[in-house]
Amino acid sequence: MRKEWLCLYETIKTELQDGVMTLTLNRPDHMNAYTEKMSEELLHFYKNVNEDDDVRVIIVTGSGRAFCAGMDLSEGGSTFLSEQSSEDYRDLGGQVSLQVYEVNKPIIAAINGPAVGIGMTMTLPMDIRIVKKDTKIGFVFGRRGIGPEAASGWFLPKIVGIGKALDWTLTGRYIPTTEAVEAGLMQYESEDPLAKAYEIAQDIVENTAATSNSFTRQLLWKMMGQDHPLASHLVESKFLHWAGQNADATEGIQSFVDKRQAEFPMKASELPSFLK
Amino acid sequence: MRKEWLCLYETIKTELQDGVMTLTLNRPDHMNAYTEKMSEELLHFYKNVNEDDDVRVIIVTGSGRAFCAGMDLSEGGSTFLSEQSSEDYRDLGGQVSLQVYEVNKPIIAAINGPAVGIGMTMTLPMDIRIVKKDTKIGFVFGRRGIGPEAASGWFLPKIVGIGKALDWTLTGRYIPTTEAVEAGLMQYESEDPLAKAYEIAQDIVENTAATSNSFTRQLLWKMMGQDHPLASHLVESKFLHWAGQNADATEGIQSFVDKRQAEFPMKASELPSFLK
Amino acid sequence: MRKEWLCLYETIKTELQDGVMTLTLNRPDHMNAYTEKMSEELLHFYKNVNEDDDVRVIIVTGSGRAFCAGMDLSEGGSTFLSEQSSEDYRDLGGQVSLQVYEVNKPIIAAINGPAVGIGMTMTLPMDIRIVKKDTKIGFVFGRRGIGPEAASGWFLPKIVGIGKALDWTLTGRYIPTTEAVEAGLMQYESEDPLAKAYEIAQDIVENTAATSNSFTRQLLWKMMGQDHPLASHLVESKFLHWAGQNADATEGIQSFVDKRQAEFPMKASELPSFLK
Repeated sequence: MRKEWLCLYETIKTELQDGVMTLTLNRPDHMNAYTEKMSEELLHFYKNVNEDDDVRVIIVTGSGRAFCAGMDLSEGGSTFLSEQSSEDYRDLGGQVSLQVYEVNKPIIAAINGPAVGIGMTMTLPMDIRIVKKDTKIGFVFGRRGIGPEAASGWFLPKIVGIGKALDWTLTGRYIPTTEAVEAGLMQYESEDPLAKAYEIAQDIVENTAATSNSFTRQLLWKMMGQDHPLASHLVESKFLHWAGQNADATEGIQSFVDKRQAEFPMKASELPSFLK
Repeated sequence: MRKEWLCLYETIKTELQDGVMTLTLNRPDHMNAYTEKMSEELLHFYKNVNEDDDVRVIIVTGSGRAFCAGMDLSEGGSTFLSEQSSEDYRDLGGQVSLQVYEVNKPIIAAINGPAVGIGMTMTLPMDIRIVKKDTKIGFVFGRRGIGPEAASGWFLPKIVGIGKALDWTLTGRYIPTTEAVEAGLMQYESEDPLAKAYEIAQDIVENTAATSNSFTRQLLWKMMGQDHPLASHLVESKFLHWAGQNADATEGIQSFVDKRQAEFPMKASELPSFLK
Repeated sequence: MRKEWLCLYETIKTELQDGVMTLTLNRPDHMNAYTEKMSEELLHFYKNVNEDDDVRVIIVTGSGRAFCAGMDLSEGGSTFLSEQSSEDYRDLGGQVSLQVYEVNKPIIAAINGPAVGIGMTMTLPMDIRIVKKDTKIGFVFGRRGIGPEAASGWFLPKIVGIGKALDWTLTGRYIPTTEAVEAGLMQYESEDPLAKAYEIAQDIVENTAATSNSFTRQLLWKMMGQDHPLASHLVESKFLHWAGQNADATEGIQSFVDKRQAEFPMKASELPSFLK
């Protein structure tokens, strides 16, 4: 199914089926290396996908044998030379990460092959990361004379703790996928990350409420920046009060009592903005 | 020993022995499902236990084969329908979690059987969680059309990192207890969580100072919300200056030098409020 | 090579070779127990090392069979008795930790033997911790009637999560080194922590840019206290704009394209202060 809000993208592909939107980084001849064009297209996608209730879960993967080999370096040493002033310049990957942070649907990264630099950091604001066993991953910035981007200075320590984050970024070493799973960077390693991603996505679509997921994703990320549990309690109370009067909670509980599959009637867009 | 501040509770049981207070969720015919009454009684307990120096450690467990099967859903779909206004409504579990956050004694959760929903989230502000091997645990809110409560939006990512927290809450899946241990949600899995809890509680009572534990518990939780290590340094300095003039530190160090068991003379209530 | 800014220290030793500064706690007859003198000397070292571009990586280790057996308790019960007022008193270890927090070079702790109390907490603001397999480590404060110091109330939960941090500090138990690795407190356990530390240090010196590492270390620590990823994005953008015009990034990318070893020409002190 093709949605009207989707542009004719050049560097990414999108496909929607049964509530699962698959976004494929699509420069297979260049190991899906990141370009300004790709960044613009990702930004457009993430800006618009929130409004589409037909999209319940997003899977991000790569075309061909790589996930994303990092920034396209075909321009050589001048790759990061910007014509903009220091005041105006904004890291491309960071702009996308901030948009992903605002998405209200679960996002699964199916890391089907090598993912380094922006190829890794772009997945940090996503929710579930599945990596192909023994593929090449790393935060290699220090070995190229640059530094963490895509807001990874904020995201990475929140996922794996400041200890692992410092180790990986200061050495810039490749990370064994087993270590990445043990540290919590990856939830799963798999011979077929995309198949595993579809399995999880299907489970989410069939068994959870879109309103619940939309609230939960926003709640957990936003509470990372709060200094007291009271902030979470107040927002959760507002949501629970609302949920208690609405059809998803009624169905969720009744189906449990009846021991049958739930059929949640509501759409994510019906959820009020409790977290703005 | 029965303490005068303890009410005649209906849904929980309390027992104090050798400094260890065991609080048992006590609706075994309903798998200790959570009710408004239970919430009130837990709130009363946690509000008053801080003042009782005879209580050195608290263990929380469940009666019968379950720890707590979540909210009592016997009212069916209208369970979360409140008569209060959205302004006034406060999540029951969150009120209790905020009180547990203020407790100044170590709290050990002995999760002796299934723990889902509020059965899991009520343990997050506790200190040490021990789970029965292969029992059913999960943050299942999304599968009931509701969302994280008991301030778990704040607590859960601080224990297991934002990655695991999102995975578990967005899928609502049951979590293998081995995975829960590896992710740091549980400190131990055991065939007999209550026995393991008593072993740890006894070690704490016999070998640590009540003043130290009271300070430590408050310090670590409160520093989660501070943006610079200086905040911790200033509070720690105040405490160390005070401790250096008091009998617990003198005994702790002297007993170490003498190679004998320490007998700490002070009570938790003698500790000034360094963290208010 | 002896640097002019290094004093003739009494309780520590320093040695610089090939960009790696080894700082050795040097009271082997006292298991390198921490004294006021050692604290002063560490403070002097960390205050001055930032300015020395010849130092690319710092390794901290202990002389003899211990890393650091904690505070020197030879004065017995009065060890923590201070003549200063409560207003003026500042924890010795905390002063050092705050200075380590500001260091702009990677720091590796080679924990070659027992490390308890300040012996453990002094390593928390460092970046990579390597522990000797099966050596004695622990946050034993509660067993001495004192409490967390060296700003560990802030640092420890950020490395291992609040759950492990509470378990370890409230029980004061010794921590099996395997558990410490699994929890992320230690990155490696090794029969020879110092050899492993040199291996990592050499890799960093040969393959990463000093400007990158200086920025990365400051970025990750400082972002721990920020409530929104935007803060990281803004700082990263400033750094990337600067890096794009400078020689380290040019060399890092060109050497990658040329498939040769990078030779980064810049010094850490050439990096502007993006994070003040």
